[in-house]
Parts: sequence; structure tokens; C-alpha cells
Amino acid sequence: MPSYTAPVKDQMFVLNELLKISEQDVPGYDELDRDTLDAILGEAAKLAGDVLAPLNAVGDTQGCVLENGVVRTPEGFKAAFDQVREGGWTALDCDPEYGGQGLPYLVSTAVGEQFSAANMAFNMYQGLTHGAYSAIHAHGSDEQKATYLPKMVTCEWTGTMNLTEPHCGTDLGLMRTKAVPQEDGTYKVSGQKIFISAGDHDMSENVIHLVLAKIPGGPEGIKGVSLFIVPKFIVENGQPGARNGVSVGKIEEKMGIHGNSTCVMNYDEATGYLLGEAHKGMRAMFTMMNEARIGVGLQGFAQAEAAYQNAVIYAKDRLQGRDVTGAKNPDGPADPLIVHPDIRRNLMDQKSFVEGARAFTYWGAAMIDRAHKCEDKAADGLISLLTPVIKGFLTDRGFDMAVQAQQVYGGHGYIEEWGMSQFARDARIAMIYEGANGVQALDLVGRKLAQDGGKHVMAFFAMVTDFIKETKGRSEGFEKDFREPLKKASKDLQSAGMFFMQNGMKNPNAALSGSYDFMHLFGHVCLGLMWAKMAVAAEDALAAGASDTAFYETKIATGRYYMARQLPLTGTHLARIESGAETVMALDAEAF
Amino acid sequence: MPSYTAPVKDQMFVLNELLKISEQDVPGYDELDRDTLDAILGEAAKLAGDVLAPLNAVGDTQGCVLENGVVRTPEGFKAAFDQVREGGWTALDCDPEYGGQGLPYLVSTAVGEQFSAANMAFNMYQGLTHGAYSAIHAHGSDEQKATYLPKMVTCEWTGTMNLTEPHCGTDLGLMRTKAVPQEDGTYKVSGQKIFISAGDHDMSENVIHLVLAKIPGGPEGIKGVSLFIVPKFIVENGQPGARNGVSVGKIEEKMGIHGNSTCVMNYDEATGYLLGEAHKGMRAMFTMMNEARIGVGLQGFAQAEAAYQNAVIYAKDRLQGRDVTGAKNPDGPADPLIVHPDIRRNLMDQKSFVEGARAFTYWGAAMIDRAHKCEDKAADGLISLLTPVIKGFLTDRGFDMAVQAQQVYGGHGYIEEWGMSQFARDARIAMIYEGANGVQALDLVGRKLAQDGGKHVMAFFAMVTDFIKETKGRSEGFEKDFREPLKKASKDLQSAGMFFMQNGMKNPNAALSGSYDFMHLFGHVCLGLMWAKMAVAAEDALAAGASDTAFYETKIATGRYYMARQLPLTGTHLARIESGAETVMALDAEAF
Repeated sequence: MPSYTAPVKDQMFVLNELLKISEQDVPGYDELDRDTLDAILGEAAKLAGDVLAPLNAVGDTQGCVLENGVVRTPEGFKAAFDQVREGGWTALDCDPEYGGQGLPYLVSTAVGEQFSAANMAFNMYQGLTHGAYSAIHAHGSDEQKATYLPKMVTCEWTGTMNLTEPHCGTDLGLMRTKAVPQEDGTYKVSGQKIFISAGDHDMSENVIHLVLAKIPGGPEGIKGVSLFIVPKFIVENGQPGARNGVSVGKIEEKMGIHGNSTCVMNYDEATGYLLGEAHKGMRAMFTMMNEARIGVGLQGFAQAEAAYQNAVIYAKDRLQGRDVTGAKNPDGPADPLIVHPDIRRNLMDQKSFVEGARAFTYWGAAMIDRAHKCEDKAADGLISLLTPVIKGFLTDRGFDMAVQAQQVYGGHGYIEEWGMSQFARDARIAMIYEGANGVQALDLVGRKLAQDGGKHVMAFFAMVTDFIKETKGRSEGFEKDFREPLKKASKDLQSAGMFFMQNGMKNPNAALSGSYDFMHLFGHVCLGLMWAKMAVAAEDALAAGASDTAFYETKIATGRYYMARQLPLTGTHLARIESGAETVMALDAEAF
Repeated sequence: MPSYTAPVKDQMFVLNELLKISEQDVPGYDELDRDTLDAILGEAAKLAGDVLAPLNAVGDTQGCVLENGVVRTPEGFKAAFDQVREGGWTALDCDPEYGGQGLPYLVSTAVGEQFSAANMAFNMYQGLTHGAYSAIHAHGSDEQKATYLPKMVTCEWTGTMNLTEPHCGTDLGLMRTKAVPQEDGTYKVSGQKIFISAGDHDMSENVIHLVLAKIPGGPEGIKGVSLFIVPKFIVENGQPGARNGVSVGKIEEKMGIHGNSTCVMNYDEATGYLLGEAHKGMRAMFTMMNEARIGVGLQGFAQAEAAYQNAVIYAKDRLQGRDVTGAKNPDGPADPLIVHPDIRRNLMDQKSFVEGARAFTYWGAAMIDRAHKCEDKAADGLISLLTPVIKGFLTDRGFDMAVQAQQVYGGHGYIEEWGMSQFARDARIAMIYEGANGVQALDLVGRKLAQDGGKHVMAFFAMVTDFIKETKGRSEGFEKDFREPLKKASKDLQSAGMFFMQNGMKNPNAALSGSYDFMHLFGHVCLGLMWAKMAVAAEDALAAGASDTAFYETKIATGRYYMARQLPLTGTHLARIESGAETVMALDAEAF
């Protein structure tokens, strides 16, 4: 069975030496000295490794079961959920006014990486609740907040997000679920929602559904969508009371994340409470979209991290073949897999991706803190731009890396007992939900690039250019291994942006045909930037006489791999983008 | 539930217009006029679409069950197997001396594509039997051939290949299964074999296991391995008689191909008959390796074809969003997915891969016919070189394409009911078995490139160069869209080969670190070559006044997509290869 050990040292490196959070002027960061961080991440790591990870395969094997209308979660899930709750882990970055700990989002991101890597399906119960918490916190009335938030902060009540219907996913304007106003100010919500993660289960006293629906007579399409709070049990005097008209239609049979109950939810004149303004439901949803999407990007690389750790263990343990340059285990029957160059290539792909992705995601989380806590418009604009990249690029590559980790196991990788299949199957969903990755690419190229007059992408380019200027002449190695590849890659990104500007106006398809490649091109540049910055941090630490030289040298070597072996992909992405729409759109639909 | 319609027209195009088989001087090809081929492929298509495809999901859902030592296959499998058998489909390219039809391997490849696309797990029962048939046919005594082959040609008795043991897969020198000689000339075979596809089942009267084992006292390692025939029921007077000492330990729980019984087989002093010479077991295995590996490459693109067909159906059917250039379905609530450029990109990736892969595989199969039927050493050498590319590249990309097809379905792609997950899960095994793809890359770079003094790779380069010369000035479009990209890509391949020659001698790791990228680079050049040749064939047909202009124009447009959007990857692969071993091998094993 696979294991998971939270990479606390790597996490601390990003927080302290790359992001230098204690030096940042963000409220709450000043309390995050190394000891505090170490204590938080160390405690979370125990829970992740000792409690959540062992339940990962259990969740996959047992799945969730619907019995007499009630969802039963896999063995051990409830006890573990209680433990997470009692440790205060669900309340980390929540508002102290409602029982939260008020820690920065960045901290809950780092803890979230551990929990998600250990057991993605399990951690979603809390993740969805946090999303619903955020929506109510941002848009709820004082009464709604007082009613729901304290219980949701502790996950005594969990939450869900109900968007998708059988005939509409991305295109929510086609929605049919309706909410009919009642005389007492409530609504009767009726319709069917599908793919509802954590839709129902036996780990909490109540489930607070946030449901998108249309109020009859409102505007057509997406502009007529409103958001409602629909509790499973109607809250009376602060306690779950009468059963509401919401029920589980079925639990979906999925490729993975079996430990999470993905439900078809049926609403039959269920009592709902309008959250925020009527017909402004999408706006309310969007306020939490960045966080939710970053959370999914995090799932992508977290699964890759867990898979990578196990691939490394297997590669060191499994004896097969001999090192072509001379036996490394001459007394044994064969050498461990890790001596073989192609196994190294595979593992280095994974390692350099995961560590770069972690830096990228934490950097994004720090922007969210800055945007929220400092009302920093530039940070808000930049994270808005980067969110589809974090979501789309990291989940695509995270899945690829989980598949590569599985490959290290040879035939055993295909056998469920070894657990490597689960990482790939679980990681697969992250490319789909919270907006399929093609939709992320569309969001990036169709909306975000031009947002605020293109200010944010210009700011990104300026930042990269500044970094390249600042690091000129730093060291011969840095110049060749990091600065030049980054310069080349960011030039590719700028050329792609230029192509869109020159061609997208007269033919939007010329830009949209390259949107997916642009998302990946952008992702590689971001990871290249992160690696260059991490190399600077590691070089600085070594220059300052850090005792753990092996750690920093490994960082630099891993970064060099990324720059040499992954970053050249930007050239391919640019070539595709510059080939435009012609070959993409050449065929009539009948010719497919 | 997904459907499958055999792409007979596309298959015929490759056979007749690309490979021009009726013009080839290969025994048996002269009988393959269009009508005959059309009849064979048309009949096979009915079986594939109407009988095998509907059982694909059944196999996945029900799997195989071990009950009282007997394996039960999914509902409907036995009846379908009888139908395949009775139609003579298992005997297509088998030796007429033993009841086969003596058709070229190319024909059974084309039929195999259909059956494998329709139901991969099902088709493996026959595929494994064919492999065992080939080994006995090539190495068996006259008596062994007379005893086993007639029943294996009809699949009344099926076959298996027993190589892997728990502690050894690629490195078969570590094998522990032993075969102790008996006075009557037979052997007692004892040991455990794992991952035995079609290891046992209820669809045939007997199972003929081919088992690799060591005769005590023989040479150490791989040189002491022999091959044995170990029937489930010992054959007496041509009929299955006494039960042999072989039993199913368990059926493995796998990620996919649930319809095939992948067994742990226990041999307990089972009676075995030496096949071929003692200690030459690996050589016997290798004689059928090319065919087996090409068969797996075929599985890779066949799954992609089946997944693609369903993605197209969904993309035309599902209404979501609007074409940015103007509504295409103004009377409907939304436009079909296929209007969106990123969906097009996704589908074109799939279409251009599958059609290129088909051409590549059939071309390889034709080389096998030429090698076997004409004793053409050049063809034998070339297919030996290309086999790891067909296996490794087509299964990697085939899996990627099945994943992309799944992505078209959005959330529905993750739900098992829709069947898209199965294509991805089934396709995943093809990257692993018959030599994991990393081993294919090692075989390519470590053995095949230098084979016979590098003669075969030189012949490949000469062939590409000749084609490029011959097609000079063909047409402006061909020049820009096909000839130039192919020239650039083949130059990248030659540069990579040069890098290996210059660096691999002094440091083998410099070559092996680039082996995986070389396999992909080579694959892209081969598909580029196939597309350029198909474009020539299509242009010629149009110039000759072919009536079905849409078909040929679609071929050219699809090829242009591949050249513009996929071939640029050769540049990235070359950059990685030329970065050498340094970043790949930089870390100590402890640093992972």
C-alpha cells in the first residue's frame, strides 16, 4: 500500500526562502515565524501521513454506498473527519468572528496540499464546505452568517456547490432548476443537479447546499441565475430540524475519488434562502472561483507528489537489470531501478514538476492573501490572470506525472493492490471539474488576457523582465542554466501574446485555436520563473554558509533539469499557436 | 454506452492507396483485390460493431471471476468467442497445413484493429493464442505442431505466455521457476508466474501455457532459460485428458481490461514439454516478439480510434455555448461542442494521430509479410528497428488520445456509465505489457540503432531522404505543408542519432538519458512520413478525378494538421536529447 510523508522541508523552503513571507507586509504573515509554521505543518503532516493516507486505498476500494436514502462513507472516514475537525484543521483561515483561526490562506494552502496528497477524496468534504463557507461569508446576510458559518467552520455541518445539471455544465445559462418565491420570503427550489461532490454523507449533522436556480420571470440565460442556501435539515433555533425536500438520486460510479460521494441531487420544492441578490448568482459564485480553482490545481500536483514519493520508494527497492556503467549493487542479484537513466528521467520529470508547481501555487495563494488583506488591486488582477494557468496546467501535468509514476512500477502499476492506479484515476478528475481545462484555456485567452486593458499580463511580463535584468551576471551557471532558458521561454510567451493581438481581433478562432497551448506555454514560463527564483534562493543560502548544502544543491540540480528538459516545450507550443486556426478549423463537422 | 463502427474506408485507403498492396511482389498479396479485402473487412466490421463492441462495457463491469478454481468470463463472452471462431477469424494468417487460411499478416492486422478497438480485453484471448501458436509453429517438433496447432488455429484450445514472476519482469535472468527433466523426456515445471493474460477461462476446452523456466544445472541468468509447453489438460489421443499440475492462484484486480482474466498461475510439478532447444528459451520468445509488440502498438491506436469515434458523436450532439464567430444552431438553445476551436484542436489531435498510426502499423505489418514470405533481410531489419517505436510511441500517444477523448465529455467523461473512462483505463496497459515503454526505448537506442552496423537506421534515413527528393516541386501546398516540415523533423532525428554516436560511446548514459525522447522523436517522424505519403496518394487520387473529393481533401487537411501541430515536437525532443545525461543523472539516489 502506498505511503505519504508530507514534504515539510520543501514546503518550508518555498514559504520562507522563496516567498520570504515573514518579510512581507501582509497582515497575519508577521505571526508566521519558522517555529510556528514548523509546528503547524509538522502537526498536519502527522495527521496526513498517519491517519488520512492509510484511508486512501480504503476509500477507493469501498467507495460510498447509498442505503435507504442515506450515504455511508468508507470505514474510518467518520473517525478521521472528527479528528480533523477536533484539531481545528477545518477552521485555519476562517474568520475568527465565526470561530475560525484567522490564519492566512497561504497556510491553509500548505496544509491543504498535505491533506489532499494523503487522501484527495476525503479532503474534498472539507474543501467543498470551505467553498460554501466563503460564498455565505461574502454574500450572506448577518443572520445567514450567524446561522450557518459557525457550524461550517467546524465542519459540524458541511457544504456543497450545486451548479451542473444533466444538460448543462459550462453553459449554465441553460439551467432549468427553478426557485419559486414564497410569501414568507423563502423559495421553493425544484430540479435536478448532478456531479455534486460530498452531496450527502454520514459525517456531519447537516449538509448546507448552495444551489444555483432560476426565479421564474427573471432574465433569460445566465443573467437570470440566483444562488440559494438549501439545507438538508432546516435549521430551527440553531439546530437541524425538519427534513427539507432534497434527496440523493444516486451516487455516481466514477473512475476515481471513490471515497467522495458524488451525488445526483433531487430538489423537490425544497425550502431555499436567497443568498446575495436575485439574478446575481453567477457573480456570487465567481467570488470564490479563484480559490476553488487554485485548490484544484493544488490537487493536481498533490497527487503527483504522493505518486512520486511511492515511485521513488519502488525505484530504490526493486532490483532489475544492471547499471550500464557498472554494477551498483554487485552483491545483489541486480541493481535497483533507480540506476537506469530512463527511470531517472521519469523521476526527475516528476520531482521538478511537483516542486515547481508547489512554488507556483503558494505564490498564487500569497497573492490572494495580498488581494484580500491589503486590498492590493495588482495582486488581485495577477492572480485572476494566473488562476486558469494554475488550474489547467497543474492538473494536466499532475495527471501526466501520476501516470509516469505508475509506469515506474511496470506491471505492478496496473494492479490496483499497489495503489498507483488510484493516484492516476483520482488525479484525472482535477482536469475536468471546476471548469474543464479547455474552459480554463478559453477563460485565459478569451477573458483574462484582455482584462483591464491587458494590464495584468503586461505586469507579469514586466516582472519577468525585471527579474531577468536583476539577475544578469549573477553567476556563469545561473546565466546558462536558468537565465537564458527563462529569457527564451518568456520571449516565446510574449510572441504568442503578440500573435493573439495581431490575429485575434479579426478572427477570434485564430486566438482560441491556440488557447490550450497558450495555457501550457504560460505554465511552463511560470514554473521556469519559480525555478530560477528558487535557484537564486538556494545559491544565496549556500553563499551564506547554510549547513544543509545537499538540500540546496539538490534544489539547484532539480531546477536545472526543469530548465533543460521541460522549458524547451515552449517552442512547440508557440509553433502550434502561430499555425493559427487554419488547420484546426479546416474540416466540416461531417468530415470528423 | 459507446459504439464502434469499423473505419473500413480509412483502412482500405491505407491498404490500397498508400501501401498499394496489389502492386507489391509479396506472395498472397495478389489475391487481395479490392473486392476481396472489402468483403473481409466488411464482414469483420459487422462482428466488431454488432457483437464485440456491445460486450466491451459488460466485460469491464462484470470482470472475470474465479469460482472453485475455475475462471468465469463475463456474460456473452463465450457465445461471441464461438462466433469469432466459427467465422474462421482466429485462423486468418495461420498456416493452411494446420487449418489456417494462409492470408497475409497484414490482413489479420487490419481485422485485429477492428476487434481490438471493439473489445480489447476480449480480443486478447485470441491474441495470446496466436502468439503461442507462432512460437510452437516456429520451434515445435512435428509432433508438437500436429498435436497443438490445429486446435489453436481454431481457438478450441487457447494459449498463454508465461514470463513474469513476482520479483522479475524485464530482468528475466532472475527467474526462479524450474523445470526438472524426467526419464520419459518430459519435465516437471514448478514455480509461480504472474500477470498471465487469458491465464484461464471457460471459453475453450484446453489452455496451452508456454512457460519460461530454468533447467537445474543450466547456465546462470538469462542464458539458462528454456521454454516449455504446459497444457492445462494433458493431451491424450488428441483430446484433453488428465488435469495437469497448473492452477490459478488468483485473478488480479486491475485498472482496466477487466474482461480478460489476468491470472497468477501456480505450477506444481506440472508436466511440461521442451519447446525448441534447452537454454534457448529467450531466442524462441524473441522470434514472436516483433509481432506481439506490433500487436500492442495496434491496441494503442485502436483504443484511441474507438474513443475518438465516441468523442465525435458527443461533440456533435452536446449543445453547450455558442460559436464566437456566430451561432451555428440559432434555433437551438446552444451550439454543439464541435463548433468550439479547442474541441476541434482536441478532435484533430486524435484524428490525425489515429490515421497516421494506422498507416504506420500497416506499413510495419507489410514489412513482416515481406520479411517472412520473401525472406527480405532489409524489411526484417527495418521492422526490427521500428518495432519499439510502433509499440512505445503508439501506446503512449494512444493512451493520451483516449484521455483527450474522455475530456471532450466533461464531467460525463469521468462517470463510468458513459464508457470513456474504460477506453483510457484499458489503453493504459498497452504502455506497460510486452515490455514497458521505457524498455522499448532502451531496446531502440541500446540495441536496434547499432544493429548490423547501423544499417537499418541508415536505410530508414535514406528512404526519407529519397522521398523528400522525389517529391521536390510537387506542388506549392505540398512543399510548405508536408515536405518542409518532414525535412525539418527528419533532420532533428538525424541530429539526435548523431548526438548518440558522438556521446554514447564514451558515456552510454548520454544516449540512454535521451532514449525515451528519441523513441517519440522517431515516432513523430514516422507519422510525418506516413502523412506526407498519404497526402501524395490523396493528391494523386484527386488529380486522377476521384469522385469522392471530400474524402481525399479531408485526408490532406488532417495531414496538414499533424504536420503543423504535432511535428514541431521533434524540436523539443531533440533539445532534451542534446542536453545529455548531466541533469538527468545529477542527483544521488538519496536526494530523491
